[in-house]
Amino acid sequence: MQAEIITIGDEILIGQIVDTNSAWMGRELNKIGLRVKQISSVSDDPQHIRAALDEARGRADIILITGGLGPTNDDLTKNTLKDYFGMDWRMDEQVLEDVTGFFARFGRETTEVNRLQAQVPAGCVALRNRFGTAPGMWFEIGGKVFVSMPGVPHEMKGLMESEVLPRLKEKFKLPFICHSTILTQGIGESVLAEKIADWEKSLEALGIKLAYLPSPGMVRLRLSCAGEEKKVRGEVDEKVKELQQLIPEFIFGYGEETLPEVIGRLLMEKKQTLSTAESCTGGYAAHLITSVAGSSAYFLGSIIAYANEVKMQQLGVQKSTIEKYGAVSEEVAREMAEGVRQKLGTDYGLAFTGIAGPGGGSEEKPVGTVWIAVASAKGAVSKKFQFGDNRERNIQRAAVSGLGMLRKELIR
Amino acid sequence: MQAEIITIGDEILIGQIVDTNSAWMGRELNKIGLRVKQISSVSDDPQHIRAALDEARGRADIILITGGLGPTNDDLTKNTLKDYFGMDWRMDEQVLEDVTGFFARFGRETTEVNRLQAQVPAGCVALRNRFGTAPGMWFEIGGKVFVSMPGVPHEMKGLMESEVLPRLKEKFKLPFICHSTILTQGIGESVLAEKIADWEKSLEALGIKLAYLPSPGMVRLRLSCAGEEKKVRGEVDEKVKELQQLIPEFIFGYGEETLPEVIGRLLMEKKQTLSTAESCTGGYAAHLITSVAGSSAYFLGSIIAYANEVKMQQLGVQKSTIEKYGAVSEEVAREMAEGVRQKLGTDYGLAFTGIAGPGGGSEEKPVGTVWIAVASAKGAVSKKFQFGDNRERNIQRAAVSGLGMLRKELIR
Repeated sequence: MQAEIITIGDEILIGQIVDTNSAWMGRELNKIGLRVKQISSVSDDPQHIRAALDEARGRADIILITGGLGPTNDDLTKNTLKDYFGMDWRMDEQVLEDVTGFFARFGRETTEVNRLQAQVPAGCVALRNRFGTAPGMWFEIGGKVFVSMPGVPHEMKGLMESEVLPRLKEKFKLPFICHSTILTQGIGESVLAEKIADWEKSLEALGIKLAYLPSPGMVRLRLSCAGEEKKVRGEVDEKVKELQQLIPEFIFGYGEETLPEVIGRLLMEKKQTLSTAESCTGGYAAHLITSVAGSSAYFLGSIIAYANEVKMQQLGVQKSTIEKYGAVSEEVAREMAEGVRQKLGTDYGLAFTGIAGPGGGSEEKPVGTVWIAVASAKGAVSKKFQFGDNRERNIQRAAVSGLGMLRKELIR
Repeated sequence: MQAEIITIGDEILIGQIVDTNSAWMGRELNKIGLRVKQISSVSDDPQHIRAALDEARGRADIILITGGLGPTNDDLTKNTLKDYFGMDWRMDEQVLEDVTGFFARFGRETTEVNRLQAQVPAGCVALRNRFGTAPGMWFEIGGKVFVSMPGVPHEMKGLMESEVLPRLKEKFKLPFICHSTILTQGIGESVLAEKIADWEKSLEALGIKLAYLPSPGMVRLRLSCAGEEKKVRGEVDEKVKELQQLIPEFIFGYGEETLPEVIGRLLMEKKQTLSTAESCTGGYAAHLITSVAGSSAYFLGSIIAYANEVKMQQLGVQKSTIEKYGAVSEEVAREMAEGVRQKLGTDYGLAFTGIAGPGGGSEEKPVGTVWIAVASAKGAVSKKFQFGDNRERNIQRAAVSGLGMLRKELIR
């Protein structure tokens, strides 16, 4: 069963916005066993939209359309679909109620322009939009499904999750697909692939597919298998258990959890606290940690010591240590970690010192050299990393690697 | 003159990666006066690629293709193009030399698989790729141009800038297009649009187009006009000058410059230094500042005081101030800014305290309330902001707004 995505709107074609909707939709459709055959971004032009619809229905059974549903004059998609399918208008009472309620909540009257949002082509099912005023529209024509949704990401996602995906599963009697995502950290994609090659080969016989999903500093592994629910769930779980035994030190979590969330959970369980001392990461590790809602329960703060004076005065790093080993050294990283832990009175101190680049490298310590240390009542651990020459990626990889080291200390 | 973009590769269709290439290409093509008619993402399948090529050439004169040029078995694009155009292979000596040199630089031998990267369809011009081993390929068939490029973003960008865009300008004798981008901060898109409505209307008569490009905390305005170089440049410059007089307080820069870069430039010019004290932004402001290469010249560090104890002990905020006004207050923001400035010995101190959400809000201080202060020898200034209910966006908007306030102090 194949699907196609059509995004409507000049803002994508002129590069004003990046189309993140299609990737999200492709991922969600894949999870329920639907393959996306093509994604087409077309202009706000009825003739072009009609041509794209003709082409898409020639290749796929499900055509998902986003964009062009604004309340004003770029309301092209709805009109075009009405004409394309040769339908009349009808006023959808439920949507009208939703739209009126939407404006009432903000203490505003519903204008005539807004009322028209509840007008839909007569032959479609209107899908209620909880996050905006433009309804989704579901058409079934000649055994094929066409769905139109707003282009605003959270409105589209809300409609997909509450209306479109459940209806597609129902309509096309899609098989159960079991997904399991294992989160790894501290091992590169190619080394990981070598390490688990035999295990990966054993997936084939069971019809389990494996995807490597790398991002800076970590790799997610996603297992997928279609079939009878109980059977495939059992088989996938078994394979996940095998992997746990194969690479226990690199697995930090499962599913949609993030590394900062895992660290937050571990610290909350242990009722312990954390602080960071950052040189080259410049606050990015603290930013990742505080991106988790509720992180104030365990994260007390950070001292970002970009200048050596700040390392000495605020973190208590010894002048002699910097002079003897340099600011980017194991010794300074350890003194920073212990220093911030003492200063802020936390159970754990996580410290970074390195050369993010592009300047500041030397033959002995090239750009991308980073020392990371974790201090706790158990003592300090430290490790040297050699990243690449891209400043942004070096900062990201250092921060994620440090969080990975911290996690290992938390579960030790 | 119209162009189309075809991206080839399953990783986009299954949502493993977001297609950022097309937006970049759309933007760059627009700058030289080419309109993108459609963007199509298709699977790694020769038949599908051929169908996409047929459709695209029916609509446009220029077809830009990315992806599917890896050295291994996903080398589908090159084979498909060769067959599609009915060409033989030829070995390109210049590319072979480039490929051999590429591996030699890393001390590696050129394998047979890598040598084959220099084999191209006989009827194309091979375009040299400075950042990788797969060459770009330029075909002219029946008055239409087809260009194939690798999907790796920096390789694609390198080829576009050095080879493809100059060749397109030459081949299609494209008119000169003058672009000018004005960066604004501290004013929302709709208020800005109202404020400059008359000025915006005056652009029409001159054929100057205006685009609003909003991102969290700021809005970029882009003016574009095609025509005789000297004439349109003069007209666009004149309009930019008018805008400078209309909204001087909101303009922080021009072109591709970022707000952290502007701040860095101003601090370097004045030979002054900066530190930050962050509560709700959790290090994100420091991260933005240190994302600029060379920022260690003026940024000494930051104290991230998530906990009240850290605000008191590390920043010298008075216990009585927190008790009397609460941690999220003008008084605390000012004491934090002055505190970090004193502690770290910098000329400027920039402080943030607020409620990022989703928890922690009250009727009096709802989620999204943020106080920001800038302290310097000139005294302290402070301002209250009321952002929304999205944690991530609140952090971003607070950090950018704080940098905006700092800039105003720097030029005062």
